Amino acid sequence: MSTILDPWGHFAIEEYEKLFKQFGIEPIDKVLNKLPKLHRFFKRRIIFGHRDFDKWLDAMKKGEKATILTGFMPSGHVHLGHYAVLEELRYYQEIGIDITMVIADAEAYAVRRLPREKILEYAREYITYALAIGLDPGKTKIYFQTNYKPIYYRLIQMFSRKVTLAEMEAIYGKLEPSKIMAALTQAADILHPQLKEFGGYEWVLVPVGADQDPHLRLSRDIADRFKNELGLKRPASTYHKFIRGLDGNKMSSSKPEYAIFLSDPLDVVRSKVMKALTGGRATAEEQRKLGGEPDKCTVYDMYMYYLAPDDKDLHKIYTECINGEILCGMCKRRAFERLKEILNVIKEKYVKISESGIVDEVVDFPSF
Amino acid sequence: MSTILDPWGHFAIEEYEKLFKQFGIEPIDKVLNKLPKLHRFFKRRIIFGHRDFDKWLDAMKKGEKATILTGFMPSGHVHLGHYAVLEELRYYQEIGIDITMVIADAEAYAVRRLPREKILEYAREYITYALAIGLDPGKTKIYFQTNYKPIYYRLIQMFSRKVTLAEMEAIYGKLEPSKIMAALTQAADILHPQLKEFGGYEWVLVPVGADQDPHLRLSRDIADRFKNELGLKRPASTYHKFIRGLDGNKMSSSKPEYAIFLSDPLDVVRSKVMKALTGGRATAEEQRKLGGEPDKCTVYDMYMYYLAPDDKDLHKIYTECINGEILCGMCKRRAFERLKEILNVIKEKYVKISESGIVDEVVDFPSF
Repeated sequence: MSTILDPWGHFAIEEYEKLFKQFGIEPIDKVLNKLPKLHRFFKRRIIFGHRDFDKWLDAMKKGEKATILTGFMPSGHVHLGHYAVLEELRYYQEIGIDITMVIADAEAYAVRRLPREKILEYAREYITYALAIGLDPGKTKIYFQTNYKPIYYRLIQMFSRKVTLAEMEAIYGKLEPSKIMAALTQAADILHPQLKEFGGYEWVLVPVGADQDPHLRLSRDIADRFKNELGLKRPASTYHKFIRGLDGNKMSSSKPEYAIFLSDPLDVVRSKVMKALTGGRATAEEQRKLGGEPDKCTVYDMYMYYLAPDDKDLHKIYTECINGEILCGMCKRRAFERLKEILNVIKEKYVKISESGIVDEVVDFPSF
Repeated sequence: MSTILDPWGHFAIEEYEKLFKQFGIEPIDKVLNKLPKLHRFFKRRIIFGHRDFDKWLDAMKKGEKATILTGFMPSGHVHLGHYAVLEELRYYQEIGIDITMVIADAEAYAVRRLPREKILEYAREYITYALAIGLDPGKTKIYFQTNYKPIYYRLIQMFSRKVTLAEMEAIYGKLEPSKIMAALTQAADILHPQLKEFGGYEWVLVPVGADQDPHLRLSRDIADRFKNELGLKRPASTYHKFIRGLDGNKMSSSKPEYAIFLSDPLDVVRSKVMKALTGGRATAEEQRKLGGEPDKCTVYDMYMYYLAPDDKDLHKIYTECINGEILCGMCKRRAFERLKEILNVIKEKYVKISESGIVDEVVDFPSF
């Protein structure tokens, strides 16, 4: 049976291991020794797979021009899932990598069918958080799909020549003009940093969630076909697990009651955390006896992603849980206290960044 | 039986009248009294049909913002068919209309599959002839599909949201990503002059050959769907007959032996004219007896289009032919002499325009 990865859906990928076999994604493990600094996302296999990440790392070490291409779909408020991506990007900047960030506003409009004004609001929110979380505006090039240079659009036009509807539908399923445009646009997003007009980065790494892999596969095929004509190379990619929403499915702004938004007031955050799905047992007594199941717990997810950066601390939390030494209510309260600290710092910085006007200095917003 | 109009093919439309019934194109006749000056292309029904041309003319008379959008596909050398279009445009400029001209280089690349360098060469040739034939560079805005402003591309992206593959295939037949892109791009070409960023022309007229009508129908549908969101109106259009090639089919650079190129040396032109398909009879004797058939004659086409602008003169040529008073050889020699005069003037101006460097001053060529 074949797994369909749908970048436009909300398919939760339960068995990441399947991806290794079916799509040729490599496990991250063998690559880790090449990293100059090991972020916990790697150690904890939150970033679990890759394509050509080893080559990208080797090239970077040799001082060849390497960059990161990342994207954000402005179709909802910024939540903890986005925060994880932003933290990953900050890590890459700390090890010296320039970042290009696309705001996928054309796709949010054409595929997600949001009104333009709403899209621009969400984009502003995201960019502000990106800077609040520590992305260096001097080393981050942020652009909108609807407001970029002509050569970027020329790529989309040129790419359309060398793909067929049949092969695109084999990758994406049934397509409409909006999704065809969006897919070719994503290919231009992924491949354009290689052109000299955009910095001439020979090595582009695209860190994505596993559901975005179809875009990577299309981009790699297109790169092969424009190898001679435009000198394009295949992009590298890494794949991360999604942080789950508080109901245990992918965190998404389309289910706001199960997502923690960075803009949520703290009392709302507290109440969401307290209602989160855990790996707890039916009764306190049973839990003390059998222990909890952290692998099923969305609160444990938060510890693993953000709330327990220290490995020993995380191990302690895990052990307490499986040994039945702590009940879910208490564990949630502790999680909320830790989350509150992180959110307070971000919220404060968010206000400062907003008031500084720097977002409009570094990003060229579309007029409509 | 339904007539398929294929803008990407070379379908010769024999029975223009059919279009009136099947696609709702109006005959040009009733509109002619609204024209401030009657070009022979109208009188001779070379421009034979229209949609909303009457409304466009009324608006223009009232001093509302009206413009022409025209296009050129740089997929071959410039021939007499293009010359007719350029003469029509010059006429509109004489009556005071500004013109926007798209160079459809994205489509030439993706659909016609020409190399980029060749496309840019053909485009330069065409633009140079356009100015040589008398288009005023101060009143003509010329742009490449691959090298325009972001808002133009934003239109393409936005349009993709409100069309389905099924309805596009109902208009165009089976589609591939390249043709979908090209069709949406044509819609942006046709509709963009209405945006304030491009002059805010409320009334846009698109003079085309009948085979381009699918693009007009799609653009009119899209305009309706973006009436509220972007304030778009339906474009008006006129339809002209193609000048036939010397074999009696549509003149096309893909059959160079049957096309007269403006760059052809005069001895080549002479030899092509002398071999042209005529409405002559099998023998001279028969022709003297029965007369020729000018309606079948590609040389008579040339008189009608260019070589006999005076109506009395054209009538005389027609009469001589049907009465058998002139044989094809002589008629062809006269046609060549007249054509030579026209071509000599154009060729001389072409050299001057080329040497002046003005093409690069008025048009922003893509870098690749």
